[in-house]
Amino acid sequence: MAKNKGPRRPKAETPKGFRDYFGAEVTARKAMLDKIAAVYHRYGFDALETSAVETVEALGKFLPDVDRPNEGVFAWEEDSDWLALRYDLTAPLARVAAQYRNDLPTPYRRYAMGPVWRNEKPGPGRFRQFYQCDADTVGAASVAADAEICAMLADALEAVGIERGDYVIRVNNRKVLNGVMEVAGLSGDDKEAERGIVLRAIDKLDRLGVDGVRALLGEGRKDESGDFTKGAGLLETQADVVMRFIDWEKEKNRILSEGVRASVIANSDSWGAFKNAQYFDEIRSDMVPEQRAATQALINRAAIFHLSELVHNSKVGTEGVDELGTISELLEAQGYGPDRIIIDPSVVRGLGYYTGPVFEAELTFEIKDEKGRPRQFGSVAGGGRYDDLVKRFTGQAVPATGVSIGVDRLLAALAAKGRLDTSAQGPVVVTVMDRTRMADYMAMVNELRASGIRAEMYLGNPKNFGNQLKYADKRQSPVAIIQGEDEAARDVVQVKDLILGAKLAQEASLEEWKSQPAQVEVPRADLVATVREIMGRHG
Amino acid sequence: MAKNKGPRRPKAETPKGFRDYFGAEVTARKAMLDKIAAVYHRYGFDALETSAVETVEALGKFLPDVDRPNEGVFAWEEDSDWLALRYDLTAPLARVAAQYRNDLPTPYRRYAMGPVWRNEKPGPGRFRQFYQCDADTVGAASVAADAEICAMLADALEAVGIERGDYVIRVNNRKVLNGVMEVAGLSGDDKEAERGIVLRAIDKLDRLGVDGVRALLGEGRKDESGDFTKGAGLLETQADVVMRFIDWEKEKNRILSEGVRASVIANSDSWGAFKNAQYFDEIRSDMVPEQRAATQALINRAAIFHLSELVHNSKVGTEGVDELGTISELLEAQGYGPDRIIIDPSVVRGLGYYTGPVFEAELTFEIKDEKGRPRQFGSVAGGGRYDDLVKRFTGQAVPATGVSIGVDRLLAALAAKGRLDTSAQGPVVVTVMDRTRMADYMAMVNELRASGIRAEMYLGNPKNFGNQLKYADKRQSPVAIIQGEDEAARDVVQVKDLILGAKLAQEASLEEWKSQPAQVEVPRADLVATVREIMGRHG
Repeated sequence: MAKNKGPRRPKAETPKGFRDYFGAEVTARKAMLDKIAAVYHRYGFDALETSAVETVEALGKFLPDVDRPNEGVFAWEEDSDWLALRYDLTAPLARVAAQYRNDLPTPYRRYAMGPVWRNEKPGPGRFRQFYQCDADTVGAASVAADAEICAMLADALEAVGIERGDYVIRVNNRKVLNGVMEVAGLSGDDKEAERGIVLRAIDKLDRLGVDGVRALLGEGRKDESGDFTKGAGLLETQADVVMRFIDWEKEKNRILSEGVRASVIANSDSWGAFKNAQYFDEIRSDMVPEQRAATQALINRAAIFHLSELVHNSKVGTEGVDELGTISELLEAQGYGPDRIIIDPSVVRGLGYYTGPVFEAELTFEIKDEKGRPRQFGSVAGGGRYDDLVKRFTGQAVPATGVSIGVDRLLAALAAKGRLDTSAQGPVVVTVMDRTRMADYMAMVNELRASGIRAEMYLGNPKNFGNQLKYADKRQSPVAIIQGEDEAARDVVQVKDLILGAKLAQEASLEEWKSQPAQVEVPRADLVATVREIMGRHG
Repeated sequence: MAKNKGPRRPKAETPKGFRDYFGAEVTARKAMLDKIAAVYHRYGFDALETSAVETVEALGKFLPDVDRPNEGVFAWEEDSDWLALRYDLTAPLARVAAQYRNDLPTPYRRYAMGPVWRNEKPGPGRFRQFYQCDADTVGAASVAADAEICAMLADALEAVGIERGDYVIRVNNRKVLNGVMEVAGLSGDDKEAERGIVLRAIDKLDRLGVDGVRALLGEGRKDESGDFTKGAGLLETQADVVMRFIDWEKEKNRILSEGVRASVIANSDSWGAFKNAQYFDEIRSDMVPEQRAATQALINRAAIFHLSELVHNSKVGTEGVDELGTISELLEAQGYGPDRIIIDPSVVRGLGYYTGPVFEAELTFEIKDEKGRPRQFGSVAGGGRYDDLVKRFTGQAVPATGVSIGVDRLLAALAAKGRLDTSAQGPVVVTVMDRTRMADYMAMVNELRASGIRAEMYLGNPKNFGNQLKYADKRQSPVAIIQGEDEAARDVVQVKDLILGAKLAQEASLEEWKSQPAQVEVPRADLVATVREIMGRHG
């Protein structure tokens, strides 16, 4: 590049895919995370804050031979080491669990909240820096740890304002999928390629639907553009087994339509609670809560029954079903019944990454999509057991399970439910009528602040009084204080109720205007009391 | 590099110069920042959270011709743009103030808290990622904005637990230095080189002391290693002017020793409050608080008097002194007297960067240094007016002033004063005696949690009971719960007071041991009440 020809002004822009958060955007998120942290803390989890920067090696994508070793992360070379911004909070946890393994308690329960960075193409609502909020238990093999994470997730959702009934936590188990693979005859070393195709097909269930996945299990699938994706080439009978695993809606309907008596289910299980024979029925909107809960409990049980039938010839599969039963039982013992946490074989997301139980929190209320159509809000958190992550460092397998809450998704949900306090209360503004009397105005501000009232003196150029009121308006100030020469001489102040003023300006008749003065003159000594009284009026 | 010969395990290590924060390290910092944020909010400041990543261009160190454009920051090239981690919170604020100038209120008052990154050689206690905590007012030319920042800083320090008397905020003004340069005959365009040397010399006052700086103002200085640094070559009389500016200790002593009557000072000022003639005296430890405050007020006044004498021939210098007087007056009107905020011409740090008032918060209590010698704790926050930062982007000068609190320094100070709650309360641990009864143990945990008590079930391998108690010990658990087969049959639980237990184990006689049982058996139904009672005992 040639020499600079003159001073060039830098662009005042956030880098592509990054954004700034202002005022209530910051404090509303913080308030939500504080509530979640309180739940995590009550569950015995300790805070951990790792640095934003990790070695690329520790993050687990070390490819020394390429110029940029990491697509997907922000990485750079530093004194011949490659460093990168963390892309999640789990990889740093694995590193910490290995690095401090002799000092940390076993099990180690930690929560972490903070930004992570993804070097991905940004899109609408998709940023390259965003918050995650995780809790994990490292070193506990028992599924009691998984059950606890599910209960804690339910408590966290309720703590931030998602009401019971507005969410459900769906639980599945990766081991059951392994059992399904076995039963479908896909478990040998020589079947790795087929298993890969099946896993990728299952992962696309949300997008392709049942028929699309079915096609990919068989010969293959032609998409809308005409491109053909080769399938796993399974036999009809093999594909049937896999489909019976993932297509829980269909299986549930089959069980319902066959009028299977719940007694069958109750008698063939060992997770007892529902001993009485009951007809298995679909949940209907006219059911009372008790009926609904009992029915959901039966559906839970039916799911476990169905899965155990499906994989009863597989040791790992049966183990997986037993774990689901134990999780159900532990949760019900604590009062986390199927009104909140259900067994759902159709939860497939991330099954590839996890090694045992997986869970997903879904919000069940409807919102309008961008085209105004109603749709379920959907997933806000997910997690599961991943027993191999620490092993990368130490060679020793360390059992671990955890959950990650999608902070922006949950904030959006709270906003949709009107549960987010984004209406920042602006400060009381003490206007400046006489710039030789700043000390007096500052003293007023100080009195208000000392009484716990958010307040400030107008610090811009005071010569245009209109600008001062415009400023108060922009700050959403509830009250403005005015004291000119005349008021000062009489030792009074004008207190202007800006909220009432705005309301009157919009809708009041002349009589109302007169009967509800938005501005009162009070003795200087009554300043704080008057402001407090006005602010109290508006709640 | 050759092909990998086999699986190589990654190192579980934080990158050089980075660290992890555990448990109370995270929550104690958070609690402190929350208290500061509450003060900032009460003063009318709004939260702002910018992204960690900025363009190098926006950060202001764009050097396109070198391979690594930024020494001092972590930077990397991304799609032909250079990006970098922010190195402070002020540069992003300047970018935001320019980017959103049509939407933000004027003045814009914001606070920001978060990590910043420095690509510097790490050292003991010096990390490459650390927290900053800033508050700034952008768009207010009035020194009332500077005064407000000083008052807010005092309130913030007191809010986190630094008592009045344990801190002082020192205020100076860059304009006075400009005046000193003028008076010393160093103001012409042709004197830029000399001014540069003088500025750098002044910045070294802390390290070199008065004599070292004096040498650098004259011919130059030979350091201990024998290396010679060429000085500014000022005449004796020029150097005297500069020294009278920075050596406030000496000037103060001169004024004291000359027995200057305070009336002289009081009569020659216009910031009135002390109208009575009083003898000017040094602050002595035997003074009552009122005497001390009055004396400090006189010293404040003497400082302003001294400075106005020094620069009375300079317009900008006089303006600077007037501003100091106004700041003093505004603060005193709000009750922030010289017991907390003083005028101190010896505050020179960062004078090069700032354009007007500068301030520094110093903690005045003594701590022991690493060799056990007592020393003052020193600076924990600093700031000032910087009117040219936004101009880089827009071409328009925007007045701005602000403060940055050194989060780690302040945390260290609170720790030194015993004001930091780093003793994390561990969870109550419900032990597992019988692994077929996990659901019962989980139910106990759930009851405790529902009563707001931090609790967990032991989730490690339960077969060795000793390990369970060791775990509780490591977690600093106050109480352990035990219920074996026998207790379950009788519907009771054992509640073990671990804090009392530890105390008894260390110091108790046999009688005390017997009279204060650290373990009690209570009905299962009394579990929560018993735990609550024991925890209440230990506060």
